[in-house]
Amino acid sequence: MNKIYNFSAGPAVLNQSVLKAISEASIDYLESGISLMEMSHRSEPVMEMVSQTKILVRELLSISNEYEVLFLQGGASLQFSMIPMNLLNENQVADYADTGAWSNKAIKEAGNFGEVNVICSSKDSTYNHIPKKLEQNFDSTYLHLTSNNTIYGTQWKNFPIPLNKDSYLVADMSSDIFSRPLDISKFGLIYAGAQKNIGLAGVTLVIIRKDILGKVNRIIPTMMNYQTHIEKDSMFNTPPVMAIYAVNRSLKWLSNNGGLDSMADTNLKKATKLYDEIERNSLFISPIQKEDRSLMNVPFIFSGKGSDEDFLSFCDKRGLKTLKGHRSVGGFRASIYNAMPEAGIDALVQAMQDYESR
Amino acid sequence: MNKIYNFSAGPAVLNQSVLKAISEASIDYLESGISLMEMSHRSEPVMEMVSQTKILVRELLSISNEYEVLFLQGGASLQFSMIPMNLLNENQVADYADTGAWSNKAIKEAGNFGEVNVICSSKDSTYNHIPKKLEQNFDSTYLHLTSNNTIYGTQWKNFPIPLNKDSYLVADMSSDIFSRPLDISKFGLIYAGAQKNIGLAGVTLVIIRKDILGKVNRIIPTMMNYQTHIEKDSMFNTPPVMAIYAVNRSLKWLSNNGGLDSMADTNLKKATKLYDEIERNSLFISPIQKEDRSLMNVPFIFSGKGSDEDFLSFCDKRGLKTLKGHRSVGGFRASIYNAMPEAGIDALVQAMQDYESR
Repeated sequence: MNKIYNFSAGPAVLNQSVLKAISEASIDYLESGISLMEMSHRSEPVMEMVSQTKILVRELLSISNEYEVLFLQGGASLQFSMIPMNLLNENQVADYADTGAWSNKAIKEAGNFGEVNVICSSKDSTYNHIPKKLEQNFDSTYLHLTSNNTIYGTQWKNFPIPLNKDSYLVADMSSDIFSRPLDISKFGLIYAGAQKNIGLAGVTLVIIRKDILGKVNRIIPTMMNYQTHIEKDSMFNTPPVMAIYAVNRSLKWLSNNGGLDSMADTNLKKATKLYDEIERNSLFISPIQKEDRSLMNVPFIFSGKGSDEDFLSFCDKRGLKTLKGHRSVGGFRASIYNAMPEAGIDALVQAMQDYESR
Repeated sequence: MNKIYNFSAGPAVLNQSVLKAISEASIDYLESGISLMEMSHRSEPVMEMVSQTKILVRELLSISNEYEVLFLQGGASLQFSMIPMNLLNENQVADYADTGAWSNKAIKEAGNFGEVNVICSSKDSTYNHIPKKLEQNFDSTYLHLTSNNTIYGTQWKNFPIPLNKDSYLVADMSSDIFSRPLDISKFGLIYAGAQKNIGLAGVTLVIIRKDILGKVNRIIPTMMNYQTHIEKDSMFNTPPVMAIYAVNRSLKWLSNNGGLDSMADTNLKKATKLYDEIERNSLFISPIQKEDRSLMNVPFIFSGKGSDEDFLSFCDKRGLKTLKGHRSVGGFRASIYNAMPEAGIDALVQAMQDYESR
């Protein structure tokens, strides 16, 4: 049987060391005779593990003490509401960049809490680029963007700067966090569902600058209030322990393999190999503008006629799984997050070449 | 080494078959060559697994089509807000029974959305009983209670009936769901964090009667709206797949072992053994009124002088773990959920007897 490479957009491939660690901890954690799943979240081993995970996040991203690191539930989708609920008064405005389906959902939820100024949209060109012309509002409380667009395969390579010095960036980094170095100081809040680059579904990483809180005058339900989770160190209620452990092991693996600089090099190398083949191969094209192409999600389509099903089946037989494009786009999409080895790209490139020369 | 018995109040003991299934699925799910953690939530195997889990919930509790079964995130704590946000208008009143710390938190959150009528409280007697005299409001939209009080060790043996025929019960069953048969038809909504009786931390089971929705006039954030999750069959965003799989395996184990009638018999037998020993043993007493004693969480204290640390250490050496009482109560607490085998109770009873005769 071929080695299997899983190009799923999320939940997505994890490093084997992470899978092994979870599998072992499911039976017995640290030779305690008890599964990590059965341990109280207030027990010493669990508290220590969660604390270590925060330290890993802080170290890898060089996060200063102005920021808190939280592990929450509900995915990016719950953050779409929590962010304006905690940060935006009814009479205030926030800038939002519209670069895809997830940006759109964030915009919709923000409208429930304050005024939304959409600074740009690439919707008319099926989100095939990141707009360069931004119509920012000087008075905006924050500027929200989706750093990587999982469905369409675009990625912000440089982040915009808010016009007002009291404003700050808020970013959904669900699909490219920990894939490249990041200057945290530009951001007021970063959030990411873990199930793409750093773990399994069920935990959301939030990195928040503490001084942006306490400025809205509405009542915030306790669980929706970032302050609750800051004060209780993500232990206000039972956190998703196993999902946090997967983040722990993923970041440990990342740390042991050179951290973000090294990972960024590898990711660039992997993506370049694949985009180069798409350019070279007579059968395929990328629908995305060159300078905005994502290093995480690589969509491609037939340049002329071709059967999507046939190529997917061809790949599937070689162990190349989950290459179908998102249902709203069609074609193919190779999600090549941190944990996708270069050998997976090589196998896909080989398949594209073999398919061409059939 | 002694066999280990884990009396943790939650996350808590799971059946070995559940741990084994999770451990195996972490590496390879259904011989696909891919971990369940790496699979898209929209892939056929995951959709099928989630669907099967719902069917198990429905079958075990004989749930009619008037109700939906949802798998959400955020624990019971998020439900404390979602319930009044979805069900209670600002000018309406809801009845709440105050039987412990968790009831209290639910009451606090409900007050953000409507009027709360506290129908009873056992706070003045450190929550050592379930009040029998209830001051219900005829106009209440619903009556909320905590079916089992994990910290104090009390349990509703019979549920109250709302005064108004359009009203309904809402219950936090986090610590006793699936421990006994239940007449669902009395309830408008039942919710339960999974990490005590049915799985691991990170998923919340919600069973909701559909006709109670759509009656409030506030804007509800999409992720906080039950209707969203009903329409999308708990797949609006990425659900906590592994946590749902743990529910699946726990309920399958329960189903294979005679279902709720059989489990209720076993739970009664286990709890009776332990309470009988507490009554018999000269060293210990139960602080809880007899008729309200929980079959899930059994707190006990020294009747006279005694060192909590010494008894805990005595038990610990025998492999009897996590018997310390909640920090707000002290003493000891044996949580003996479904997955605690009778042999665990026997080992604890033996330890209590040996400690007495030292």
